[in-house]
Amino acid sequence: MSKQRKPTNRRGFMKTVGASAAGIAAGALAVNKGAAGENHGVPPDPAPPESQGNYVGGLTAAKMETVRVGFIGVGARGGGHVNQMLHLEGTEVTAICDIHEPSARRWEKACKDAGHTNVKVYAGGNHDYRNMLEQENLDIVVISTPWRWHATQAAETMIAGKHAFVEVPIALTEEECWLLVNTSERTQKHCMMMENVCYGRDELMVLNMCRQRLFGDLVHGEAAYIHDLRGQMKSIARGTGSWRTNHHVHRDGNLYPTHGLGPVAQYMNIDRGEDAFSYLVSMSSPALGRQAYAKKNFPEGHLRNKAKYACGDINTTLIKTVMGRSIMVQHDTTTPRPYNRLNLIQGTGGTFAGFPSRIHIEGRTDGHKWDDKAGLQPYYDEFDHPLWKRMGEEAKKAGGHGGMDFVMLWRMIYCLRNGKPLDQNVYEGCSWSVVSPLSEQSVKNHGAPAKFPDFTRGRWQNTLPLAVIS
Amino acid sequence: MSKQRKPTNRRGFMKTVGASAAGIAAGALAVNKGAAGENHGVPPDPAPPESQGNYVGGLTAAKMETVRVGFIGVGARGGGHVNQMLHLEGTEVTAICDIHEPSARRWEKACKDAGHTNVKVYAGGNHDYRNMLEQENLDIVVISTPWRWHATQAAETMIAGKHAFVEVPIALTEEECWLLVNTSERTQKHCMMMENVCYGRDELMVLNMCRQRLFGDLVHGEAAYIHDLRGQMKSIARGTGSWRTNHHVHRDGNLYPTHGLGPVAQYMNIDRGEDAFSYLVSMSSPALGRQAYAKKNFPEGHLRNKAKYACGDINTTLIKTVMGRSIMVQHDTTTPRPYNRLNLIQGTGGTFAGFPSRIHIEGRTDGHKWDDKAGLQPYYDEFDHPLWKRMGEEAKKAGGHGGMDFVMLWRMIYCLRNGKPLDQNVYEGCSWSVVSPLSEQSVKNHGAPAKFPDFTRGRWQNTLPLAVIS
Repeated sequence: MSKQRKPTNRRGFMKTVGASAAGIAAGALAVNKGAAGENHGVPPDPAPPESQGNYVGGLTAAKMETVRVGFIGVGARGGGHVNQMLHLEGTEVTAICDIHEPSARRWEKACKDAGHTNVKVYAGGNHDYRNMLEQENLDIVVISTPWRWHATQAAETMIAGKHAFVEVPIALTEEECWLLVNTSERTQKHCMMMENVCYGRDELMVLNMCRQRLFGDLVHGEAAYIHDLRGQMKSIARGTGSWRTNHHVHRDGNLYPTHGLGPVAQYMNIDRGEDAFSYLVSMSSPALGRQAYAKKNFPEGHLRNKAKYACGDINTTLIKTVMGRSIMVQHDTTTPRPYNRLNLIQGTGGTFAGFPSRIHIEGRTDGHKWDDKAGLQPYYDEFDHPLWKRMGEEAKKAGGHGGMDFVMLWRMIYCLRNGKPLDQNVYEGCSWSVVSPLSEQSVKNHGAPAKFPDFTRGRWQNTLPLAVIS
Repeated sequence: MSKQRKPTNRRGFMKTVGASAAGIAAGALAVNKGAAGENHGVPPDPAPPESQGNYVGGLTAAKMETVRVGFIGVGARGGGHVNQMLHLEGTEVTAICDIHEPSARRWEKACKDAGHTNVKVYAGGNHDYRNMLEQENLDIVVISTPWRWHATQAAETMIAGKHAFVEVPIALTEEECWLLVNTSERTQKHCMMMENVCYGRDELMVLNMCRQRLFGDLVHGEAAYIHDLRGQMKSIARGTGSWRTNHHVHRDGNLYPTHGLGPVAQYMNIDRGEDAFSYLVSMSSPALGRQAYAKKNFPEGHLRNKAKYACGDINTTLIKTVMGRSIMVQHDTTTPRPYNRLNLIQGTGGTFAGFPSRIHIEGRTDGHKWDDKAGLQPYYDEFDHPLWKRMGEEAKKAGGHGGMDFVMLWRMIYCLRNGKPLDQNVYEGCSWSVVSPLSEQSVKNHGAPAKFPDFTRGRWQNTLPLAVIS
């Protein structure tokens, strides 16, 4: 799978890949394939909107010698991206937009200090990014704004002729997802959700092991975002908590599925020739933690105490795939529980589980036990992803979530400079993100199944699996 | 909750408890209480059958000086029960029934060696247990037969005027559960499912911690039976695998939910004054592992190779409670994954998770970390359950799943000899076991919710929580 030659003609190549991907899907795991055509007890979807352009599952753009980069949003997250982009060869930061001028100026200065001297700042309010998109000669725009701006700004970026790179989640609703898919297809611009966790060392190694079939036929995965973020409620005027808290007030479901789910989807080749999400069911616990936190930390009558928190402290969602596999995805940013993304992948031959990392491979691991701690070293020695072997040391030095941010940005720029398809296409960003609104729908309907839209309009079956690249 | 005085009049006492339990339910956690009355998108249940007797949620029987014990089934599991029963003061093993005469004779001899000299053996085929029930003067019957016999034999035991103690699961279908409930109510005989895991050291400690509100308001739990039992497929003529394998051929769902779920249900006071199961949704992975195992381990054309395995290798079920809490329950006896019961309980104040055991209590644990390994000792020192403190050393010596089997049997005999209510009533056995057929129903309906019957007919709201007894 990782050995396919570089195509000279993309369409011809995808036909070839399609044949091989169909071969995979027709194999041992195809037992439940028939389920794809059923309605799973829920009303059939309305027909997907007609495509207004060509499929972009393996989109490439002309090679860029230097990638001219603009940023919308340089707060807690976007500022980190600027900082790391400055370390990358072949980039030129050209414009920075933020509604908070001091943030924009801070990163403008950092750019200048690093030799990126032609940075224009846009800090003229909520819609000044439109002026940036119109006036600046940019190749790509990195969007790290509050969630509700992601899809709109990404679509406008593509319409302005730039490639969009968007923080997670890429969109909040099914409609926003279709907006991105249709806009990317019509404009033939990249629209990549920047799921950095796909570039973690363990995640990359496990992807490599899945491709080598160490776990046999995959049957089940688990993913989570369990991260106590109640402290963010103290951000009132600005900062992540100032807007993110409101999602807990107005929505009930999995608000943030992609960090855990992205890597698991890659292990299973979701939307990439082998499998796709079919439907989900979702359940939330009572919402008690944020009210209690507010009571303890804010005066009576405070905004945070007046709010009624709707979002269950922990949400658990089960995804069924077209091949019949199951994926459990959890979200909990409210209870005092240690950080966990679960990162579990399980097959007929073995299991990897994260937090802490442990591996059981039948015939390799002794007894019914885990290889963990020092016992993991032989796996890293043998299966570390080539990309991590190459970039790992540099990534650790650069920092950013254990190096994953740096590897992601490096890989984005590498693909752009070499005219390669990106590692995450717009359909993946949408399939992973749409878990949020679908989970909200299922929770509202007391656990009734909610069906995934097929953003690829059936083309996932002919899409190239993510290769294990070096 | 654990401080209530011993009642002199049971009915009067339950009224008092009812008031206090209603107080709990009306408290902070009652946010989703309204959901109990809704139909959750599934057709309403048929009205429960009318009770043919009095509620047995806190049933007591007259004190027994010596408990005369009969056994139906003394194979892999029942034999262990005989062995441990012989160590307990105040018991007299009186009859042993097994369709496999050598097993019956083996345990007859063990009984005689231990001074239980009046043991009658019944080994005359599938229905010889009826002769035992009719002819023997027994107080209790311990039933450790293949699953499909549990409910029938328990009901016949009660009809014959004996108390029934049944291995897990207590029943396989909703109808069998009603049979047990109605028979217990009509005959006023105990019908206890022997969920031994409720007597594990960690489970008892966590129960104690829940009662002391160390985890705050409980919002979520996780339970599992992950145990690679493919090797049992090699039992063909007799032994557990000879009949258990067939369940994998004919059913798809959670075949064995109670080991993980029982303790979590106790933490949450399910069916005991505070909360009850409302509905579940369930999802199975593809069923690949047993076919693959058969292919590898049996000749072509062998029974095990001719079978088509229906049961997904791993099943994940989500239970919603009346108070809105969520419980995830998994079943996997097929993939090569290390043993796990999850045993997770999570509240607004902290989390306990098992396999390996770890605890986080806000304000007590440093940072966003787990107290684990040596860090657990202070918790054992402070919160070990009084029953474990008293019995632990003896239990470890007696063996049987780390001592839990011994503590369970000791406690059963203690309650019978002292005329106390048992720790697990018939409603709990049924609520925990009915997860199997409901999960099968949900899996069959592509994840559609399945509603729990209320086996207590509303009386759970007035039932005494399991006390932390010494």
